[in-house]
Amino acid sequence: MNSAVSEAALIGLDWGTSSFRAYLIGKDGQVREQKSAAQGIMAIKDRDFEGAFRSLLSSWSGHFSLPVIASGMITSRNGWVETPYVPVPAGKDALASRLVPYRVDSGLEIHFVPGLNASHDAAPDVMRGEEVQVVGASAEAKGEGHVVLPGTHSKWVKVEAGRIVDFHTFMTGEVFAALKTHTILGTLMTGGSFSCEGFEQGVRSGLCGDGDLLHRLFHVRTLPLFDRLPRTAAADYLSGILIGSEIRSGLASHKNGDAVTLIGRGDLTDRYACALTVAGMKSRIASETVVASGLFEIAKSAGLTS
Amino acid sequence: MNSAVSEAALIGLDWGTSSFRAYLIGKDGQVREQKSAAQGIMAIKDRDFEGAFRSLLSSWSGHFSLPVIASGMITSRNGWVETPYVPVPAGKDALASRLVPYRVDSGLEIHFVPGLNASHDAAPDVMRGEEVQVVGASAEAKGEGHVVLPGTHSKWVKVEAGRIVDFHTFMTGEVFAALKTHTILGTLMTGGSFSCEGFEQGVRSGLCGDGDLLHRLFHVRTLPLFDRLPRTAAADYLSGILIGSEIRSGLASHKNGDAVTLIGRGDLTDRYACALTVAGMKSRIASETVVASGLFEIAKSAGLTS
Repeated sequence: MNSAVSEAALIGLDWGTSSFRAYLIGKDGQVREQKSAAQGIMAIKDRDFEGAFRSLLSSWSGHFSLPVIASGMITSRNGWVETPYVPVPAGKDALASRLVPYRVDSGLEIHFVPGLNASHDAAPDVMRGEEVQVVGASAEAKGEGHVVLPGTHSKWVKVEAGRIVDFHTFMTGEVFAALKTHTILGTLMTGGSFSCEGFEQGVRSGLCGDGDLLHRLFHVRTLPLFDRLPRTAAADYLSGILIGSEIRSGLASHKNGDAVTLIGRGDLTDRYACALTVAGMKSRIASETVVASGLFEIAKSAGLTS
Repeated sequence: MNSAVSEAALIGLDWGTSSFRAYLIGKDGQVREQKSAAQGIMAIKDRDFEGAFRSLLSSWSGHFSLPVIASGMITSRNGWVETPYVPVPAGKDALASRLVPYRVDSGLEIHFVPGLNASHDAAPDVMRGEEVQVVGASAEAKGEGHVVLPGTHSKWVKVEAGRIVDFHTFMTGEVFAALKTHTILGTLMTGGSFSCEGFEQGVRSGLCGDGDLLHRLFHVRTLPLFDRLPRTAAADYLSGILIGSEIRSGLASHKNGDAVTLIGRGDLTDRYACALTVAGMKSRIASETVVASGLFEIAKSAGLTS
């Protein structure tokens, strides 16, 4: 074994609906190696998660006696082991105390991270996996105030003293895909590189909307029809309306003078940073591997790493 | 010929994206016969609209020397003859003066009704076909004030002295279908009869939303997850959120103490009438064949019927 490998202390898994990410983490919390694959939980045949784990990480088989900690949709009803939701407020200690351990006969020991739920007047809200990323961002001193995790289901998370105190989910990414692909709005769209102008025009529309999103969406059709928006920019305009609408509502629930911390895929965080600028807000972008820091922090709090 | 047929003066067509409706109308404006088929303009092979017209109305071939007046998406770029948009304010006289006549060698004479467009600050709005229904409702003295035409693209129309002075489109029906069929929200839904309770619960959520529709949509997932909404009611809850959100925004643009007039398919107008009641508004329902009255009024104004 080389020196880097000798320090490995933990295997961290971020296993979601559409992707698999694994981190070999050292005693110091640093990522030694990482692997990713498009093997989300929906892609695993016959729900053979152990087989997929062993196969995807076969080159790490020498470390399978290390504790494994897993978060994301792998902890949902459709995943490997379902974990409960822990109510907010909750930080790394609360998550650590509610880990669900699972020991496989072959010797693997996996600790599944619980999800979080928040109670609002109208209905509950939930997350699975994002809470670990927020813990990681907090550990990097980038997670105080408001953290936004853009994506299929965007999360706006309020953090105080390292604990998640509230959060709201927005279906922005999934609504965008459904509208673009399965409504008349997509028919006028033609491909092209990112249209910053079209996107910002959409953001401004979304930001000033007063609950009239269903009306403003129709502009994605009428503006190109009247030659007031290039067809190559229509998809970005739609994206802008939705993200602008999310930001308008997110800022209403998460008022704060500070900058917003963004966690996620680079193209998405860039888009949100641009939209937040249009909204007059500052933002900072956390590293994409912040989930590894979060998994390490929770494992350490649970005493899994010595 | 029998006496009813001898009085026929006009053939009216309401030919939309997904359906074909024809009316044989007498000199007195009464509908003598009507036909409908699921032969919307998208279903017509090779855009042979004349062939489809002759085939669908073959039993009326003795009347093909009568003037024909046509409205709906048949007047769009993908239709038979494209007509321009006439800006609001506009009533039956303005529509009549902008009819686009089209004479087929075989002797058919068809007059295509223009669409309407409205200019708002953010973007233009358009309609094709609904304007004729509103004219028809006005002729029946049911169209003053505010007319709502629920559907794939719902229209809120403001009418003063028989003229359309403004309108807004909401993509409610199409967004509902896309979200139900192509997002995770549909996965928790199970079939069932109409859930009035679930629908009204959704309407209340949509009505009180302040631009946070993308957040409230997520409740369609979390409420069944926490056993706070039966899965059989989830689709109606989603429908309620969207219709409630439309009504909240529609009423903001179309403030009026009077009752709202609803035009459309019976199941939809019932649903909107229920939602408007939750919003504290009265409504009255116009007849489904109001489009025939509108086509007759416009034809009369254009001097097509003697």
